[in-house]
Amino acid sequence: MTNTDVETSRRPRREGGGRRGGASGRNPVPQLPRRKLKRLFPPMQIVSADELESIHHASLKVLSEIGMDFTLPEARDMLKKAGATVDGERVRFDPAMIEELIASAPSEFTFHARNPENDQQIGGDAITFGTVASPPNSSDMDGGRRTGNYQDYRNFLKLAQYFNCIGFLSGYPVEPIDVHASIRHLEALRDAVLLTDKPFHAYSLGTERIRDGIEIARIGRGISHEQLEREPSLFTIINTNSPLKLDTPMLRGILEMSSRNQIVCVTPFTLAGAMAPVTVAGALVEQNAEALAGIAFTQLVRKGAPVIYGGFTSNVDMKSGAPAFGTPEYMKATIVGGQLARRYKIPFRTSNTCAANTVDAQAAYESVFSLWGLTMGGGNLIMHGAGWLEGGLVASFEKFVLDCDLIQMVGEFMQPLETTEDALGVEAIREVGPGGHFFGAQHTLARYTNAFYAPIVSDWRNNQQWLAAGKPEAWQKANAVWKQALADYQEPAIDPAVKEELNAFVEKRKSEGGAPTDF
Amino acid sequence: MTNTDVETSRRPRREGGGRRGGASGRNPVPQLPRRKLKRLFPPMQIVSADELESIHHASLKVLSEIGMDFTLPEARDMLKKAGATVDGERVRFDPAMIEELIASAPSEFTFHARNPENDQQIGGDAITFGTVASPPNSSDMDGGRRTGNYQDYRNFLKLAQYFNCIGFLSGYPVEPIDVHASIRHLEALRDAVLLTDKPFHAYSLGTERIRDGIEIARIGRGISHEQLEREPSLFTIINTNSPLKLDTPMLRGILEMSSRNQIVCVTPFTLAGAMAPVTVAGALVEQNAEALAGIAFTQLVRKGAPVIYGGFTSNVDMKSGAPAFGTPEYMKATIVGGQLARRYKIPFRTSNTCAANTVDAQAAYESVFSLWGLTMGGGNLIMHGAGWLEGGLVASFEKFVLDCDLIQMVGEFMQPLETTEDALGVEAIREVGPGGHFFGAQHTLARYTNAFYAPIVSDWRNNQQWLAAGKPEAWQKANAVWKQALADYQEPAIDPAVKEELNAFVEKRKSEGGAPTDF
Repeated sequence: MTNTDVETSRRPRREGGGRRGGASGRNPVPQLPRRKLKRLFPPMQIVSADELESIHHASLKVLSEIGMDFTLPEARDMLKKAGATVDGERVRFDPAMIEELIASAPSEFTFHARNPENDQQIGGDAITFGTVASPPNSSDMDGGRRTGNYQDYRNFLKLAQYFNCIGFLSGYPVEPIDVHASIRHLEALRDAVLLTDKPFHAYSLGTERIRDGIEIARIGRGISHEQLEREPSLFTIINTNSPLKLDTPMLRGILEMSSRNQIVCVTPFTLAGAMAPVTVAGALVEQNAEALAGIAFTQLVRKGAPVIYGGFTSNVDMKSGAPAFGTPEYMKATIVGGQLARRYKIPFRTSNTCAANTVDAQAAYESVFSLWGLTMGGGNLIMHGAGWLEGGLVASFEKFVLDCDLIQMVGEFMQPLETTEDALGVEAIREVGPGGHFFGAQHTLARYTNAFYAPIVSDWRNNQQWLAAGKPEAWQKANAVWKQALADYQEPAIDPAVKEELNAFVEKRKSEGGAPTDF
Repeated sequence: MTNTDVETSRRPRREGGGRRGGASGRNPVPQLPRRKLKRLFPPMQIVSADELESIHHASLKVLSEIGMDFTLPEARDMLKKAGATVDGERVRFDPAMIEELIASAPSEFTFHARNPENDQQIGGDAITFGTVASPPNSSDMDGGRRTGNYQDYRNFLKLAQYFNCIGFLSGYPVEPIDVHASIRHLEALRDAVLLTDKPFHAYSLGTERIRDGIEIARIGRGISHEQLEREPSLFTIINTNSPLKLDTPMLRGILEMSSRNQIVCVTPFTLAGAMAPVTVAGALVEQNAEALAGIAFTQLVRKGAPVIYGGFTSNVDMKSGAPAFGTPEYMKATIVGGQLARRYKIPFRTSNTCAANTVDAQAAYESVFSLWGLTMGGGNLIMHGAGWLEGGLVASFEKFVLDCDLIQMVGEFMQPLETTEDALGVEAIREVGPGGHFFGAQHTLARYTNAFYAPIVSDWRNNQQWLAAGKPEAWQKANAVWKQALADYQEPAIDPAVKEELNAFVEKRKSEGGAPTDF
């Protein structure tokens, strides 16, 4: 087996997130190295070009005839000046105005990290997965379900850094509710810079917070204000208040972020049957109207500012009103969302979701159905990639690990199939011949080390071995893995001057009282 | 809500498998009505036309240069007469001979059931899901894992009949090992006819068994020998003995089945790294060579006999040799298998698999990855659709129910998205307006009953309700469902004369000693 080293270097596979062996002294968690994923197949289309146009035109009709409420007077003034009809808070858009404004949105751009190796390409065929974001609760199988807190927040950041398949922070992986709301963004974003070197998100909760977020992103990268304006280094989710409302904190977020050329992701949360019509097509019309209005506003603030089309259409259980995720309706909405975003040549954001209460079969099948939809549908920026449980109410440590395995599998699925003459293996088949086996074939020995995906969680032992091991379920393996990952976690290197400047900024802003909490 | 009845009749959704209310007195299991699934989107292609040709040509090279062992002299004689080169058991095929023979295989045909409503279209855009087949063990969460037995066998048949999403019996859902091997096929196939009215499978384990199977299929349908020859009413799996061997019982199966115009599904079981090269492409070359040889032989036996291209390429864990299923490699092999089958214009068989030891998250994600591959890859006849666990060593009652939910979701995903003007919902959006909600909208009231897929297993209750219910996991819900399904099961009607003839045939064959057990 002299070829092992050569093969390993040809296609490196299993490596730990931390240093060799890891601080835990055990073998590192078997994970794939960091890599950029590209979709090599055409995205799936489940509505025809004509049907897509009918959704598009219905959305424009909504915006021109019904309109959308913009609660910030400054935004309304800008829109009025640009040609929109303003009546109280209601803003109506001529279809041509929407089409003209959104035309300047870039189809692709780079989302910069403080470590350039973690820069993410956004748009086109690129796909990148982020952490879960914003659950008010966290859980693990030992400690159970609890209110989100600072320690769990920091631990999720460490996992985000440790796992190579995580490209960015989608937001706070869990809300650190024990940190006062006035300074929470300062503490949380400082940790995002120090505990990870991946690109991150700041919440649009008023002018002060988003300005602080932009400044922390700039300091973290150690760059000038000018360079920051050239290189988008922060993103923010702009959730419309569905149906048809953009509220003041969100509009201020767009004003601050787009004017600085930072990334805005406009995401309506259009649950069919609740905040949107009871049909998937109707919910998509509403999603599209709201997304287009928000995107148009970003381009009014700054032509060419990076913006992402966010799709988050699912359905509710009509018996209980409970939101459902990872359903067939969710898959369809995701795929049509991608069709719409590509129609506008704007990167597409979607999510890895589930409604399950625990890390059971339901959590897994709802997540893989979500991944199916978003992978085939051409998602670019995938929020809630790892850790989302209970419809987003809980960030789960075990689900985080399980999702990393799922994301890695999706990534492996996206790799091209090798069809070289050696891969076709006719000579290996000749060597073995009828009735033989390939375990000892030269072809096998030359390739076996890295031939197949090695999962993080899956247990492939036979029944006897599995019984002897105590009948572990997937969540138990995941439980052991996140603990090892935390033990093996290594804080990424940072320029001491950057760290000092960051700490000084955070302490100064804290001493000033942080941000108002009456937003 | 006066529209409810109208809407329900417009698009009937939830109904029980048995009579209204069910024998259990509870509400029937919420399941979708019987329906024929069609794939409306183009199948996915992950290798180019050129790469596909390179796999095709490599397979032909394997068949011409290396050849394949046919252990039955009669088969070799036929092949020699048709132009193949025979050397001992080894048969080598000129590429042109293979191409010419497979050209007569039909691209689509009907698989007839004794109840014509359960006839299955095989090929083209049609997709039909069968039960799990052939595990030597069964399990449920109460009784645990046990050797396959007659009672479990019958119970699985009842579930196959009860669940509308199950189109056919893939084989024995579990091996009834407590029935003597000489008469097992007689008892098992009699039950297949009496306990279900769906089309079924007989094993190719020697001439006598497969002849008995054909006769039982004929009697069950109450038709003449001539009509049976016009209407394929039974299928058999022909597993090659990979690598590159077709053994005597399987060849006898082809001789009996193809000569009677019954359905043969040629399925190599090509585990990359074990019975096939360690590369997915190499395993596909071997799969394709073996499948082509078997398919060619069916057409030599009878030009135009219905035949299915079976793909069952997965990989092994190279550390342990354990077979892996539902992996990224499995997905790719499934999709390329579909590309190959379509190249030959032959229906494609694939499977819903997993390697998990229990009905946990792993079982679910491996299954949904399988379903993803086979749905996007254009599978037509889906074996092991419901109940497969532990790499096929176990038929699980809970997994059966879980899989029915997954199959239904795949079926829902395949339904076209309604984009009528009413579905686009602009008037509903106008009615509700910014800041409102859609729960009480006219559009919602008119559609809510059947707006969304209602799952069998998924638990969408909020955390408080879920905790109060005792924190049930998905398998616990599935456990309750299969018990209710068995309680509510209704034996399908049958013509008494048919039943009498069937019983007489089975008893006569049993009194003759059944079939030899030294095959």
